[in-house]
Amino acid sequence: MQAALIIFEGMTSLDFIGFYDPVTRLKTMGFRPDFQWRFCALQPRISDDRGLGLIPDYVAAPLDGFDLLFIPGGFATRSLQHNQEMLAWLKTAAPVPLKTSVCTGALLLGAAGFLAGKRATTHPKALQELVPYCRVVPGVRVVDDGKVITAGGVAASLDLGLYVVERLAGPEARAKIAAQMDYPYR
Amino acid sequence: MQAALIIFEGMTSLDFIGFYDPVTRLKTMGFRPDFQWRFCALQPRISDDRGLGLIPDYVAAPLDGFDLLFIPGGFATRSLQHNQEMLAWLKTAAPVPLKTSVCTGALLLGAAGFLAGKRATTHPKALQELVPYCRVVPGVRVVDDGKVITAGGVAASLDLGLYVVERLAGPEARAKIAAQMDYPYR
Repeated sequence: MQAALIIFEGMTSLDFIGFYDPVTRLKTMGFRPDFQWRFCALQPRISDDRGLGLIPDYVAAPLDGFDLLFIPGGFATRSLQHNQEMLAWLKTAAPVPLKTSVCTGALLLGAAGFLAGKRATTHPKALQELVPYCRVVPGVRVVDDGKVITAGGVAASLDLGLYVVERLAGPEARAKIAAQMDYPYR
Repeated sequence: MQAALIIFEGMTSLDFIGFYDPVTRLKTMGFRPDFQWRFCALQPRISDDRGLGLIPDYVAAPLDGFDLLFIPGGFATRSLQHNQEMLAWLKTAAPVPLKTSVCTGALLLGAAGFLAGKRATTHPKALQELVPYCRVVPGVRVVDDGKVITAGGVAASLDLGLYVVERLAGPEARAKIAAQMDYPYR
């Protein structure tokens, strides 16, 4: 089980880390010892939307061999959804069987063609921007359309991560990981 | 208003990012245009507890000129609380008027001497480890002892960040930032 965790210049780090924390506990807490992940980007170093520098370990390489794709959001998605280099790279993930996003990461899933005919959501203030790509579902934190799972804004990343944990390892794993995260909400 | 945001080898990134996101919105959303932050570390590059590389912009320099100190947690705190280089560095923050931590970051606040006579909390499973340093408060997500504010485990970082937002900019700022974060809990 190999996860491609996408990071990009101008992303919102909480979108990313809120998902990364619970899903990587699948391995560190022993529920899915086979769970592995790479930090994937087009550049060898990126900065988030508030200046934090992050270092990917899988740079500008094809995404077709992964089992899970995750894309965070951030204001930069508004231009990246029209960036041909970014879209060509994301499209290499077409064979990935499970694709996920938080917040406006859904715009990138949509621009890459992965939301056609699907139900999906995004940040509550960005719902209209997602309309060209799919059937938009407002008012819920996580929308599961089988091969594509999308979440609401920023902090919904934690809920998406725990949702994916449950799908991959069951409700007991979810409960124990949420307890270790000290996250009582759902 | 200058915040020293500490990062260290082996930290838990969600402890850090869950605080960093709401407090930096004080500036990006215009509530406190004077709010600034540095990513402070002892090394020029650090890796979190699951392999993500982060780049500080304030390295091995004194912390005495800041207005706010923030320390995240992670398993590495168990050894760092006895690391003399780390403690000597953290002690340079003694004059900082507001000191904060999430999760086992409280062990570092304690080891640096900043919790003497204070009420504080940490991860629910680490409460006993904090006993040598202070009066431990279990069962609440944020403990405010005036000049020191501590929070529970990992995801309590979001609650601490929003608590500090309210203290620095009032309840309306908190409500608007929480809405922009799509975080309905408190």
